[in-house]
Amino acid sequence: MKSKLLLSLLALTLAGSALAQVKVEDAIKWRQSGYAVMAWNMGKLKGMLVENPASFNKDQAVIAANTIAALANSGMGGLYVPGSDKGKGWVDTRVKPELFTDGEGVKKVALAFNKEANELAKVAATGDAAALKVQFGKVGETCKGCHDKFRKDDK
Amino acid sequence: MKSKLLLSLLALTLAGSALAQVKVEDAIKWRQSGYAVMAWNMGKLKGMLVENPASFNKDQAVIAANTIAALANSGMGGLYVPGSDKGKGWVDTRVKPELFTDGEGVKKVALAFNKEANELAKVAATGDAAALKVQFGKVGETCKGCHDKFRKDDK
Repeated sequence: MKSKLLLSLLALTLAGSALAQVKVEDAIKWRQSGYAVMAWNMGKLKGMLVENPASFNKDQAVIAANTIAALANSGMGGLYVPGSDKGKGWVDTRVKPELFTDGEGVKKVALAFNKEANELAKVAATGDAAALKVQFGKVGETCKGCHDKFRKDDK
Repeated sequence: MKSKLLLSLLALTLAGSALAQVKVEDAIKWRQSGYAVMAWNMGKLKGMLVENPASFNKDQAVIAANTIAALANSGMGGLYVPGSDKGKGWVDTRVKPELFTDGEGVKKVALAFNKEANELAKVAATGDAAALKVQFGKVGETCKGCHDKFRKDDK
């Protein structure tokens, strides 16, 4: 099952040989960092789309959406290296062991997130705040979909 | 001086009103995360351009370069909020107090990094590994330029 998962992740990330040398601690730290950067930018969008629509700014929305899409396309799946089901990056990983065995489930949530994140960037570029709010919600659902399934102790 | 620095940062980041609500701890965590994601992707490029040129892969190079450029364009300057000269994100910040007083110096290193990081993405898109290696070096110099000036205890 591990090799099947790896193939799924490779299909998403084109991880290649360089990733074989990634240390577990670094892998966990980098994925925690990637998610934190996404949270920062989702927070920016939430601020201008949900909490305070008067603060909507197209340029800022585009920057936030592009950052999220770039992270979605960055090959973070390749950071789930063997042995990184436990361990500490910045802090202890909260990944569930299922992520390393449920290849099909991982592929499903990863593809969903990738699709909606890239769509987010496209919608942001139009400057249509109402459409972006809808798409922001869709991205949030894909975040939640993965957290519910593959993250422990969701806050 | 602080307001001057803030203006410089705003010019780079178009931070806007939403950022006024960023907590110091979050701001530090998010900027540490952004730099970690950049380090991950600089490491990928180093692997395929310097350490093991036989592993060069254009698609991977483009992904890494685009991720670095996206972070460079993400408005991280806006995360140097007042009060974040000290404090803990994932770990204690290593920022030097000078970053909050030397507006011109900050602008210089920030613009240099932004320019070279965006050029990195352009060069990666050409698939020219030799040219990308040169540009990778230029980006690295701008990273170092900021670290030397504004980061404590550089490792």
